Amino acid sequence: MRIRLINPNTTQSMTDAIGRCASDVAGPLTLVEAVSPSMGPASIESHYEEALAVPGILEQVALGESEGVDAYVVACFGDPGLDAARELAHGPVLGIAEAGMHAAAMLGRTFGIVTTLERTTGRARELAHRYGFGDVCVAIRACEIPVLALDDPRSDAYGRVVAECRAVLDAGADAVLLGCAGMADLCHRVSDEIGAPVVDGVSSATVFAESLVRLRLATGKRGEYAPPPVKAMTGLMAGFERAWADA
Amino acid sequence: MRIRLINPNTTQSMTDAIGRCASDVAGPLTLVEAVSPSMGPASIESHYEEALAVPGILEQVALGESEGVDAYVVACFGDPGLDAARELAHGPVLGIAEAGMHAAAMLGRTFGIVTTLERTTGRARELAHRYGFGDVCVAIRACEIPVLALDDPRSDAYGRVVAECRAVLDAGADAVLLGCAGMADLCHRVSDEIGAPVVDGVSSATVFAESLVRLRLATGKRGEYAPPPVKAMTGLMAGFERAWADA
Amino acid sequence: MRIRLINPNTTQSMTDAIGRCASDVAGPLTLVEAVSPSMGPASIESHYEEALAVPGILEQVALGESEGVDAYVVACFGDPGLDAARELAHGPVLGIAEAGMHAAAMLGRTFGIVTTLERTTGRARELAHRYGFGDVCVAIRACEIPVLALDDPRSDAYGRVVAECRAVLDAGADAVLLGCAGMADLCHRVSDEIGAPVVDGVSSATVFAESLVRLRLATGKRGEYAPPPVKAMTGLMAGFERAWADA
Amino acid sequence: MRIRLINPNTTQSMTDAIGRCASDVAGPLTLVEAVSPSMGPASIESHYEEALAVPGILEQVALGESEGVDAYVVACFGDPGLDAARELAHGPVLGIAEAGMHAAAMLGRTFGIVTTLERTTGRARELAHRYGFGDVCVAIRACEIPVLALDDPRSDAYGRVVAECRAVLDAGADAVLLGCAGMADLCHRVSDEIGAPVVDGVSSATVFAESLVRLRLATGKRGEYAPPPVKAMTGLMAGFERAWADA
Amino acid sequence: MRIRLINPNTTQSMTDAIGRCASDVAGPLTLVEAVSPSMGPASIESHYEEALAVPGILEQVALGESEGVDAYVVACFGDPGLDAARELAHGPVLGIAEAGMHAAAMLGRTFGIVTTLERTTGRARELAHRYGFGDVCVAIRACEIPVLALDDPRSDAYGRVVAECRAVLDAGADAVLLGCAGMADLCHRVSDEIGAPVVDGVSSATVFAESLVRLRLATGKRGEYAPPPVKAMTGLMAGFERAWADA
Amino acid sequence: MRIRLINPNTTQSMTDAIGRCASDVAGPLTLVEAVSPSMGPASIESHYEEALAVPGILEQVALGESEGVDAYVVACFGDPGLDAARELAHGPVLGIAEAGMHAAAMLGRTFGIVTTLERTTGRARELAHRYGFGDVCVAIRACEIPVLALDDPRSDAYGRVVAECRAVLDAGADAVLLGCAGMADLCHRVSDEIGAPVVDGVSSATVFAESLVRLRLATGKRGEYAPPPVKAMTGLMAGFERAWADA
Repeated sequence: MRIRLINPNTTQSMTDAIGRCASDVAGPLTLVEAVSPSMGPASIESHYEEALAVPGILEQVALGESEGVDAYVVACFGDPGLDAARELAHGPVLGIAEAGMHAAAMLGRTFGIVTTLERTTGRARELAHRYGFGDVCVAIRACEIPVLALDDPRSDAYGRVVAECRAVLDAGADAVLLGCAGMADLCHRVSDEIGAPVVDGVSSATVFAESLVRLRLATGKRGEYAPPPVKAMTGLMAGFERAWADA
Repeated sequence: MRIRLINPNTTQSMTDAIGRCASDVAGPLTLVEAVSPSMGPASIESHYEEALAVPGILEQVALGESEGVDAYVVACFGDPGLDAARELAHGPVLGIAEAGMHAAAMLGRTFGIVTTLERTTGRARELAHRYGFGDVCVAIRACEIPVLALDDPRSDAYGRVVAECRAVLDAGADAVLLGCAGMADLCHRVSDEIGAPVVDGVSSATVFAESLVRLRLATGKRGEYAPPPVKAMTGLMAGFERAWADA
Repeated sequence: MRIRLINPNTTQSMTDAIGRCASDVAGPLTLVEAVSPSMGPASIESHYEEALAVPGILEQVALGESEGVDAYVVACFGDPGLDAARELAHGPVLGIAEAGMHAAAMLGRTFGIVTTLERTTGRARELAHRYGFGDVCVAIRACEIPVLALDDPRSDAYGRVVAECRAVLDAGADAVLLGCAGMADLCHRVSDEIGAPVVDGVSSATVFAESLVRLRLATGKRGEYAPPPVKAMTGLMAGFERAWADA
Repeated sequence: MRIRLINPNTTQSMTDAIGRCASDVAGPLTLVEAVSPSMGPASIESHYEEALAVPGILEQVALGESEGVDAYVVACFGDPGLDAARELAHGPVLGIAEAGMHAAAMLGRTFGIVTTLERTTGRARELAHRYGFGDVCVAIRACEIPVLALDDPRSDAYGRVVAECRAVLDAGADAVLLGCAGMADLCHRVSDEIGAPVVDGVSSATVFAESLVRLRLATGKRGEYAPPPVKAMTGLMAGFERAWADA
Repeated sequence: MRIRLINPNTTQSMTDAIGRCASDVAGPLTLVEAVSPSMGPASIESHYEEALAVPGILEQVALGESEGVDAYVVACFGDPGLDAARELAHGPVLGIAEAGMHAAAMLGRTFGIVTTLERTTGRARELAHRYGFGDVCVAIRACEIPVLALDDPRSDAYGRVVAECRAVLDAGADAVLLGCAGMADLCHRVSDEIGAPVVDGVSSATVFAESLVRLRLATGKRGEYAPPPVKAMTGLMAGFERAWADA
Repeated sequence: MRIRLINPNTTQSMTDAIGRCASDVAGPLTLVEAVSPSMGPASIESHYEEALAVPGILEQVALGESEGVDAYVVACFGDPGLDAARELAHGPVLGIAEAGMHAAAMLGRTFGIVTTLERTTGRARELAHRYGFGDVCVAIRACEIPVLALDDPRSDAYGRVVAECRAVLDAGADAVLLGCAGMADLCHRVSDEIGAPVVDGVSSATVFAESLVRLRLATGKRGEYAPPPVKAMTGLMAGFERAWADA
């Protein structure tokens, strides 16, 4: 089984890191391919960057379809391009916010989210509503560390994430979801520190994508998620449009 | 990894059948133990039977805790006793309605449910709301075949389930969830017939329970789901109460 | 008119106390029978205990049906077994959380709840949603006194309940609902102290049950709440199952 | 105990009829005073008429306060002036839509409403949301008979109400609520015909108002429902404004 | 184009002030007529006063219909009589809470409200739900200054409104809506002070009413908002009832 | 005042047509600039096409910012890129679904939508929820005519849109919203035919954008919609990224 893990930004060290997290939880017969698109922002912390990451995500899905990939994970907590990717792919596609919320919801009655910058909390709230967890998600807090500073020792990401996780528990959450792919490697350590379940979306999406393939389940394609019509496409998207149409 | 699959009713043939479905999807290193409780109803089609199935479910969880079970699946679509089981168990506990709804929600924007008797649709609706899928679940329909008649050829369960699945698709669902453990073995055949994803809760709960264990996640135990206080318990529950307290 | 007030735990002093509260508000032609089941926990502060209280509740309803009882009150704030009891009974059945929430909602735009232990607030929130009061109920707070310590003078239950009631008012509630049958006798004294309406579920359920009988109203029995099918039942429930089937 | 039952329209025969229905269910020590205001529309079937009925309702509450009335019922299914009446009155005030919805909600999981004209269904839906029953109320249907024609034999009100009640049951309701005070006397007959509980708001509000008084409960007056400030009032309301200020 | 701006209270200085605010934003070809009714309260801070303001509002709409007015604005933040006014008028009718909420919602994901007295926040919350902004409106705060003291320099309305607006921003709002017509002239100054958009409902309703007329849009009149039936009306409303029927 | 009306697809005839509709309703001092992006799909009927239209929309906003544009309208009913555009622009930005829903909501209690292809209804439903109109929008129906065939006489767009509008009214809507920019010129003719208000999002967004500018209101920029951070951007977006950074 091949799962393509798409890091929607172009920072290769982050692609490598989440690839390791995903491979650690995948089953013995599952190959996780962590990839970055050829175009897009270095990190994603705004709607603008999220929007501009989408063509690169779709490029990777189009390529994956031509190579026989079984399932996809979109590894940015805003779940950019998820609906479009579902139209393109034959197999299941999961976003890490989506998968992480499903996992967190299975651990009790409520969960909370700790994300990077305050400005991203609106999108997290919107996604919680979209997936059904508007009431289940009782708190969304930001540690105010930019994505690319998370692994900079000077940012004290660990300490600040732990502090916000505790605030989330105080708000009544049974579990905490980390709201950024860049926090994936903090997951177990933070969980041990706070004595409560801490969920990472990257690894959750990986095992759930593998689960759906084992269950022989994929996106329903009779309505909204049917393949998009073939149509004239002007300008810079034309390249991977062709790649996908050939798939 | 040991997953205990609890059939909350006392019909052994059904326990065997769902055990096979679960084992088919479990990973190579996972042992699925399908069990029935020592007490309870022959099948569950009312709130009354659901309520009286709960002591037997808790008996099995208490036994499992004394035996080192890693995760539990409660295999009745009303998810009876789920909150209580989460208090008793150290590892994750999933209901098949819960797991099936999570799986179905990952396959598009909407899903619908096909269940046995009309009288069970209220509980299905309640669970959809509880888990966050009140708006995502766009239709709940009954085929009006009792649980224990599902595998009786004279009931034409297959034909009637197919008909109701098609009605669910017509209502705008991207995927269909089968609303009874006794329908588990119909899943792939119905899916092929209707050309849309059909989800079985038993196998979904099995792979998701396995997933949570691999992610090292379990029920949050700091609040609502902390172990229940040890307390005087009069009458017939006293036996397994002791078993659990000893675990 | 006979109303059976079922204390789902086995603590007789509590049964006596709530019986007095209920009789005080019942009309002159109404007989309130306060009963405890033959089996179950000494008090209910967890999902586990709530689940194991249900067989005893159903036993009492089954007995009541054979004796011509007109209506039932289930006097635990988790409303355990309510749906199952409605299937068994011909007359109306009310839970004290349900009735208390209806009463509190009639006193303004919003209400709040003061309950015993923090771990029970999740169930209270779930019931508020179930009955329609998810937005109406603006606060749920716990005084952190166990049920059986409420009438122990050393617990200062009165002072701590008053403090939490005031916090509920500060959160914008027009009325306060006491979230435990064991607080019933505090109701008027707390109301006088805080200068706001304080609702007790036991007495509310009693007068509302009486009201429904006078209105000649009972549970609708054409669908979800029709009598449960007669079916093989193994083990310890067999006794009262027969009692009910004979009724 | 004195309960003032306010018919917000000026049709005396309707006041008499609902007075009889209310007295039939009130307890032996309760006096029900059915009154009409001195001003207002002959019947209420629009927002315009509902708005113009409010001054008359408030006049009756102001008079009642000066006479020591214990509780009030506003007997129009749009619950006109309810919030304002709660500000004026010391005791509880119930609308018949409000009380009827509470009663209907106690009889199962869902209810539906049968009202007079289609144009009134929007207000009924709004009130269901306001009181928390937006999801509980699964159908609202109109028989298209004007209020004052309900007791005209040529309108076949009985037959058309029965037909709409059956449609409501088919939509999955456990109980039916009659959406007009003018239907109060049809209640038991329709219930017998359709074999399901049928709720009349007038009698429901009467017994619930009596219940609240017995529970010593009234509107919370610390916030939104505190007595309105005394203030200059120009023109035609000045008369009963003085009556209320003197009370 | 003629827009009638109805101040529902009888304080002429307030009518003049909001008339200036509305004229400032209206297009060059639009005439804004600011009027007060002949009857009603001096200001509106309770449900009681709101209810008694409605006949005067309807009087003004009835007069406006006889004079060829194109659209109406009801300039009290409780939006009194809005549904009834829509039945009477041929053209669009907007409340200032309604219009202000629509405007505020267009400026980001969330907004908050700063109103006069705490007792009015319940109605503001109710209207936010009614118009769809229950989740969008993240905070409602009161400055505790009565309407008629807003322009009294001793009340420091400006300072207290600014303080509450900042509290609303801290609660996560992208924009602030002023919850009283009497605050209209503070709008731009407060916005400059806090560095965030501040919305005034009076001017918003004026430009939106003008917009709807330009779009040739008006209230849908086929159902709920059809003209009310002509009917006997007793007492003090009879006067303007005739005025409207003649229109 | 300059309003940039962005047609997110590259079909110039459609840009011209919506430019005419917008100019017809704009005030005399308002200049409407209808533009198409340099890249993107010929029409938008899938999530894939919507996603790939976003870079071109942002290009146009970036250009507009460098040219002093006062407000923007994104003229595709999926409101693609709206959040990102709000981050880039100083003035207000409106989507045509957003503006059309606000306009339709001002015309009664409920509205419905008539869109092109069934596959687009999921996004329309999602947007209705996002903007607060989840309950207000009572029906979404598709005429099953692709965008670019709407003005092909052989498609009978007029007849089929009228038929679906009537179905929307039958579902209880007070007004109908046309769910595609390509239907803008049908608006008044359909309204006359069905005798109910019919809303076009393009003209609604134009007058509302003009209204917001007159009210001196724009997107709140203190949180989620602050300008995006300047950051490395690889590949094809780099061009207009620079254009925007220079603005």
